[in-house]
Amino acid sequence: MIINWTKIAEKFNLEMKEKIANLKEKPCLWIILIGENSSSLRYIKQKQKLSEFVWIGFKLEKLDENITQNELIEVIEKFNNDEKITWYMIQMPIPKHIDENIIINKIDPKKDVDWFHIQNQWKILVWDNTWLVPCTPAWIIQIIEEQNINLEWKIVTVIWRSNIVWKPVVNLLINLWATVINCNSKTKNVEHFTKISDIIISATGKYWVINKEMIKKDTLIIDVWFSVIDWKIFWDVADFEDINKICKITPVPGWVWPLTVSNLIKNTLKSYENKRN
Amino acid sequence: MIINWTKIAEKFNLEMKEKIANLKEKPCLWIILIGENSSSLRYIKQKQKLSEFVWIGFKLEKLDENITQNELIEVIEKFNNDEKITWYMIQMPIPKHIDENIIINKIDPKKDVDWFHIQNQWKILVWDNTWLVPCTPAWIIQIIEEQNINLEWKIVTVIWRSNIVWKPVVNLLINLWATVINCNSKTKNVEHFTKISDIIISATGKYWVINKEMIKKDTLIIDVWFSVIDWKIFWDVADFEDINKICKITPVPGWVWPLTVSNLIKNTLKSYENKRN
Repeated sequence: MIINWTKIAEKFNLEMKEKIANLKEKPCLWIILIGENSSSLRYIKQKQKLSEFVWIGFKLEKLDENITQNELIEVIEKFNNDEKITWYMIQMPIPKHIDENIIINKIDPKKDVDWFHIQNQWKILVWDNTWLVPCTPAWIIQIIEEQNINLEWKIVTVIWRSNIVWKPVVNLLINLWATVINCNSKTKNVEHFTKISDIIISATGKYWVINKEMIKKDTLIIDVWFSVIDWKIFWDVADFEDINKICKITPVPGWVWPLTVSNLIKNTLKSYENKRN
Repeated sequence: MIINWTKIAEKFNLEMKEKIANLKEKPCLWIILIGENSSSLRYIKQKQKLSEFVWIGFKLEKLDENITQNELIEVIEKFNNDEKITWYMIQMPIPKHIDENIIINKIDPKKDVDWFHIQNQWKILVWDNTWLVPCTPAWIIQIIEEQNINLEWKIVTVIWRSNIVWKPVVNLLINLWATVINCNSKTKNVEHFTKISDIIISATGKYWVINKEMIKKDTLIIDVWFSVIDWKIFWDVADFEDINKICKITPVPGWVWPLTVSNLIKNTLKSYENKRN
């Protein structure tokens, strides 16, 4: 069975819209965009559309793609010091002549709605409900919760080992009492683990690392990433048609925009509420 | 085979002593002790002895056990502001009328040699070699490294889920490319995981949760905690004599002082080096 995350996002967006309608003040999402990368523009369009739908403000600061790193830091400092701007994000990717890592950590952590600043990333380790969660880990957990799965007693295999996504996911799952198995490219016999798992989360970006021989019936499979070979998209999970008959699986092909964007708005709303409390 | 962690500590202490002999300035360890808890006094005695052995300074600030929380915070602020004091620790446990959590987070994170401050704990998630590691997670990794085990390709089961120890351990192991399985009290069939593991780390403090039926030959077992029932100590691992014949196991009964104290001195030394660089 395909998990329709567009539907999950729609329901979630309506709930947020209702919540926002009851607020006295209207939160606003600020985005800094550098250059005119076409996929960034499409992504921002989604963010703007959803902001308008749930009825929050949306402000875009467009910067020239030839801006120097120092000039960009000046803009960030202006944003940090501007009391009207309570949270904002910088649309990734940014041009290659600018160091992404330096830029992310120049954002005031209190205004970091993407939750990418290193001081914020760490906080996942000692999870507190009032904090934000980066958008990708957030929607992974959201999909699990939408299936009414109680993570206690459950076995979850997480296949990958990147700093930005897996660490939050692994730690969030452990905080929710799941038994978590973290595999990486140096794990022998991944199938041993996937076969006993209630949930499999894969984001290797490697061609068909999971196939129908490696799973049991009724597993929830969340396939987060893909690879592109000869202009064709290959997801981590092969044998989609067969697996779809016996498991719940996120749509392949599909795209994570709806839920990522929803969670960005959720973070905006949460930042707003944290500031008011 | 019993792993003699006293021997590991002795070797490590000699290496530190040699390193310290070549320093121009002598690092110093400051400890704040509240009251006269007899096990704290014994523990501090060990810290003092080792400080003298490796030839670093040792200063103890003894406070009355009836000190109020505010008075203690004043002492901490004095320590934070005193430039001569570059790092220090507060001996736990502290009297029950004082909130441990508040106190730990009053320590200047840059002077926190125990690495207990919440701002420091988070850093384990994005591990950087220049940072400190809390003493218990540090010696668990040290024991593994002493056995010349390359964690790549290895399966490690970690049984427990506490904030102070397991999260650093799980994340440190993942950073070292191990395949990590994190079990907790809500995990079904723990034996399924322990039977396939190359390393088992247990700190449940529950009576014999691991026995000889649950492990394979040549596993490295690190038994970190125990329970006390009717004045008798029970470790997490039962069947010690049988397991000892086929596995490497940390001594039961045994005690973690030697390596914990060594790692405290290591943190002192590292703080000193970080400050000089």
